[in-house]
Amino acid sequence: MYALVFHGAGQRAWEQKPRPQIQDATDAVVRITTSTICGTDLHILKGDVPTVTDGRILGHEGVGVVEEAGAGVTGVRKGDKVLISCITSCGTCDFCKKGMYSHCRRGGWILGNTIDGTQAEYVRIPHADNSLYPLAADADEEAMVMLSDILPTGFECGVLNGQVKPGDTVAIVGAGPIGLAALLTAQFYAPAEIVMIDLDENRLRVARSLGGTQTVNSSDGQAVQKVMDLTAGAGVDVAIEAVGIPATFDICQAILAPGGRLANVGVHGKPVELHLERLWAHNVTLTTRLVDTVTTPMLLKLVRAGRLQPKALVTHRFALADVMKAYDTFGNAAKERALKVILQCT
Amino acid sequence: MYALVFHGAGQRAWEQKPRPQIQDATDAVVRITTSTICGTDLHILKGDVPTVTDGRILGHEGVGVVEEAGAGVTGVRKGDKVLISCITSCGTCDFCKKGMYSHCRRGGWILGNTIDGTQAEYVRIPHADNSLYPLAADADEEAMVMLSDILPTGFECGVLNGQVKPGDTVAIVGAGPIGLAALLTAQFYAPAEIVMIDLDENRLRVARSLGGTQTVNSSDGQAVQKVMDLTAGAGVDVAIEAVGIPATFDICQAILAPGGRLANVGVHGKPVELHLERLWAHNVTLTTRLVDTVTTPMLLKLVRAGRLQPKALVTHRFALADVMKAYDTFGNAAKERALKVILQCT
Amino acid sequence: MYALVFHGAGQRAWEQKPRPQIQDATDAVVRITTSTICGTDLHILKGDVPTVTDGRILGHEGVGVVEEAGAGVTGVRKGDKVLISCITSCGTCDFCKKGMYSHCRRGGWILGNTIDGTQAEYVRIPHADNSLYPLAADADEEAMVMLSDILPTGFECGVLNGQVKPGDTVAIVGAGPIGLAALLTAQFYAPAEIVMIDLDENRLRVARSLGGTQTVNSSDGQAVQKVMDLTAGAGVDVAIEAVGIPATFDICQAILAPGGRLANVGVHGKPVELHLERLWAHNVTLTTRLVDTVTTPMLLKLVRAGRLQPKALVTHRFALADVMKAYDTFGNAAKERALKVILQCT
Amino acid sequence: MYALVFHGAGQRAWEQKPRPQIQDATDAVVRITTSTICGTDLHILKGDVPTVTDGRILGHEGVGVVEEAGAGVTGVRKGDKVLISCITSCGTCDFCKKGMYSHCRRGGWILGNTIDGTQAEYVRIPHADNSLYPLAADADEEAMVMLSDILPTGFECGVLNGQVKPGDTVAIVGAGPIGLAALLTAQFYAPAEIVMIDLDENRLRVARSLGGTQTVNSSDGQAVQKVMDLTAGAGVDVAIEAVGIPATFDICQAILAPGGRLANVGVHGKPVELHLERLWAHNVTLTTRLVDTVTTPMLLKLVRAGRLQPKALVTHRFALADVMKAYDTFGNAAKERALKVILQCT
Repeated sequence: MYALVFHGAGQRAWEQKPRPQIQDATDAVVRITTSTICGTDLHILKGDVPTVTDGRILGHEGVGVVEEAGAGVTGVRKGDKVLISCITSCGTCDFCKKGMYSHCRRGGWILGNTIDGTQAEYVRIPHADNSLYPLAADADEEAMVMLSDILPTGFECGVLNGQVKPGDTVAIVGAGPIGLAALLTAQFYAPAEIVMIDLDENRLRVARSLGGTQTVNSSDGQAVQKVMDLTAGAGVDVAIEAVGIPATFDICQAILAPGGRLANVGVHGKPVELHLERLWAHNVTLTTRLVDTVTTPMLLKLVRAGRLQPKALVTHRFALADVMKAYDTFGNAAKERALKVILQCT
Repeated sequence: MYALVFHGAGQRAWEQKPRPQIQDATDAVVRITTSTICGTDLHILKGDVPTVTDGRILGHEGVGVVEEAGAGVTGVRKGDKVLISCITSCGTCDFCKKGMYSHCRRGGWILGNTIDGTQAEYVRIPHADNSLYPLAADADEEAMVMLSDILPTGFECGVLNGQVKPGDTVAIVGAGPIGLAALLTAQFYAPAEIVMIDLDENRLRVARSLGGTQTVNSSDGQAVQKVMDLTAGAGVDVAIEAVGIPATFDICQAILAPGGRLANVGVHGKPVELHLERLWAHNVTLTTRLVDTVTTPMLLKLVRAGRLQPKALVTHRFALADVMKAYDTFGNAAKERALKVILQCT
Repeated sequence: MYALVFHGAGQRAWEQKPRPQIQDATDAVVRITTSTICGTDLHILKGDVPTVTDGRILGHEGVGVVEEAGAGVTGVRKGDKVLISCITSCGTCDFCKKGMYSHCRRGGWILGNTIDGTQAEYVRIPHADNSLYPLAADADEEAMVMLSDILPTGFECGVLNGQVKPGDTVAIVGAGPIGLAALLTAQFYAPAEIVMIDLDENRLRVARSLGGTQTVNSSDGQAVQKVMDLTAGAGVDVAIEAVGIPATFDICQAILAPGGRLANVGVHGKPVELHLERLWAHNVTLTTRLVDTVTTPMLLKLVRAGRLQPKALVTHRFALADVMKAYDTFGNAAKERALKVILQCT
Repeated sequence: MYALVFHGAGQRAWEQKPRPQIQDATDAVVRITTSTICGTDLHILKGDVPTVTDGRILGHEGVGVVEEAGAGVTGVRKGDKVLISCITSCGTCDFCKKGMYSHCRRGGWILGNTIDGTQAEYVRIPHADNSLYPLAADADEEAMVMLSDILPTGFECGVLNGQVKPGDTVAIVGAGPIGLAALLTAQFYAPAEIVMIDLDENRLRVARSLGGTQTVNSSDGQAVQKVMDLTAGAGVDVAIEAVGIPATFDICQAILAPGGRLANVGVHGKPVELHLERLWAHNVTLTTRLVDTVTTPMLLKLVRAGRLQPKALVTHRFALADVMKAYDTFGNAAKERALKVILQCT
């Protein structure tokens, strides 16, 4: 089969690889029909993720059809259309029992990281019963593939950890795919205001169309002041950090009202300075989280009920065989006005 | 009357001041019978708290007898023995309605800060209905005065914010009065282990006698390694920071298990470095809080039921008129083996 | 002034009464500009509420203008437009401190019950600081008066107690004003389905227009079977009882899925049979609640933000002086297609 | 092998049965070393549980040693000492994912019910990875076997569902093994008072020795009045029903304070009358639950840490071969002063 293979920092290739086989009784092999590219894949390509080694097939998002299921798999069978979770969960270890699948002792984020991933014609999924979700045969694959990673990430790490409540004022720093996923799912809780903050006017425009009630262009360095003005000096109840650099974290900590929650979603490469000399008496809560995908069943219900439309995040489509071009587009997101790019393999 | 008066950094005096009077209908004037000194009072004396100005009577803890109550006060009357909360609450503003009395728009921590305090023969208490708690005439005042500040602080900022649960492994960094208050109240939730960390062997000895199951002397700089060894490499579920400096905060962030909670109680004078490059995927929660004293009624119930014995924290007793000496003792806590020093005024 | 006065079962009159005066320092007198009639007022008129005695002015909902405020009132002043809460709260007693204003030791539901109410030109409001909410001078009074009782009741007793969550299947039994208030506010939490159940086709039609996704006419006695069919035999996550008779309670207990929540909102006049022989192992939660109106500030925010439009519940309008006719209309709700009738006094 | 076999109402025998074998890859076969008898076993013998049919081996509690593990079992292996949970959980279905193992679509309470149980020399355990808990080789089996059912039942259905909090007043109706398990575990949350209610003076004496602060003998029909007197008319915050008949349920609903929680643990055979005509405005919560055993890992931690001593509930010991006599003793619990009877098989 063909797959997108990592060969060290800056090196990727669309090349032939052996088709994956069942290794353990709890494995399934899935034929990929729809995949996509994540910002994390770009980080890997820069060489920032040392657990990913030469020869690894990338990708941790996908929808496909079960080609083969191990003897111990009971929830899906050959021919089923399935959603692949970016997080592999054994369902049995202490972390899985607590709903922290991200730290599963036999799984976690391993797809396209420590085992081969989904930007390929086939992928092996360990612990299939707890890592795949059956879909209807006629499910909209482009909508569903948004539930592999991006929607649960925005929702769990941003909205749930930020404890968004009816009437809240929420700020989301970063209007890329993850920030927009937080925007879509924050609306499950009827906040009064959602302020979207980004450097890119196009993304802010998209944010308004998806439910942002206010937008702040932070390119002039005045984001904090603008948010304080918008909130009559009160600050926000929830600040969601969806970028992953000190500057955006700083905006978040500066705009929090007393009692506010700062939910970090971004992947950070260096420490930040936390202003405890001011915040110690401010009654704030700060959270971090690698997505657990525990909310995937609920998100599936809302998509089926028509109350969540994640397809709005799709801007480009490529055949899987053109994945090299798809990376070029996704890698120039601002110029290409790209959010999520779909990889189709039919 | 006489009172302990602040006269700028390093300057304090026991001197005559006018007796306080009712100013608003919701005020009460209380004759102090028992007071005590807080670590914050030492910070003020160092000149670290700019809101405290020359001439201010210090102290925000106390038990006394109502001398006079304003026309709008309905919950207490002349002659009632009362506990004074360190936090003044109007009971009506948006923050009070949410239980965040610490940020009350007409109160908060004002006693011995922006209005005259409790290290005096009499004190005026604004919003008396929501800031005083009636006590039985024969209540043990030394036990009760621990509920003005230190017990709710350890409990709310440390134990509640840390979400201590049955079976948890808890670490408390700092075994001074606040850390020990957290130790006493953490036991309300049946943690499996409570590891106490301090530089002072005497305080660690006290900690063991009050329920600490393990102690770690951090003077060799190896606290993190020792805690990881004690937990078989797992780290702790809850780390309570009860000191207020970067070094102790760093211990806390280094020993957290995935899913752990870091509850900051300490008063910090400078920023800390938060290791988001490691913690972003660690599913942790970090909280800060100025005590709200919302749990005072519950703590009173447990003292009355004999299930909480805060008097264990009292090491020294002075007449209020000897408050200058009491400060000397409390200011040399390690040498004097001092925890809480009682000021008696009968 | 004129007021609607109760004179024993079946007896009401629009007659002259003395204008109310400030009695305690914490009172305010409000000139009513908009009021409305509640289902509870009809119960009173039937003689079902023994605490209401001859001569009582009815009504516990209203918007008005402060005419006079006692010396101890700090939050509102003469001339302010205010929302009157149906629940009077002292803000100081143990129940108020826990957010259970409904059981306030000095208040609770007293307006139009044990003290004179709001279907009058003027009303005295005790504990004004905690029982009135300031409104903008140009606030839409018809929308706001829905927040005196009906919206917080549907939300607190139905939606919050039912723990409605994103993706849930919710059933609401009763599509009168309270059931519709629950319907409007259940949507704050993005349930996947909201099934409305009633005997009246007109009310079901309104329910569909306000966000109900399914409707069940229960007049054929087959409501349980219909709901089980709609949910493929699974039952519902949340059943909200908004009528107050054994038959509707029985529907609720029969349609609950394992793990489900039954939130009772209805005012019951007799016991119900609870099928513990089946439910003991069903992991269900059943709640009751007299509204506390703790969520009124949040509801006000959402109305101001345009995310909640309670005016949709208004079907008829009368001058306050025509309140006798308004009662006739409201008392024949099905025939008149009446939901909330507005009483205007300008 | 030998086993205790049910042969219809009133009929039981200690007889030879074939040794169980692995049937599915996720099964394990366990050699029983310690078992015990549950009140539910007595219900079965009375013929009250129609799912239990002639020929069934009874028993759903046990500690043993893994004799054989299927190919798909990863968490335990031959020779491991294990605790058997009374609830079988597949770990994968929607209910298991929500922590409702009691309603597992492939398990739940099946041991000694719809499949053969643990009062035998060997037992087959389906879904072994999620239904067995590894123990240390030297674990105290008598203490541990209390964690198969009785401790998680008292804790989850009584204490957790009752939301016991520090300072609460708790009443537990029924001081048999389950009520005492609730008593032991209620103390994890530092309630101010625990009132134990029973007909049997011996059980009340035991209750006092295990932490009950007050006892009420209900044999005179005055339990409600006595509890109201003990609480100065306030009622209790939490009432735990641990018997399963209308009379004890009635005590619980009569003694609840406004805002109180009624946690039903008892197995009921008929409906109860719920006094909604009084409780609709009382802001109460009523819960039911078949134990999920989700808290077993936490309870194991507390037993290991020495903070929970469930062995206190053991009153009698028999060899497994004497199980017929053990049933006689347990069936005359009051006369024999029996709580839990241990069955040993070494």
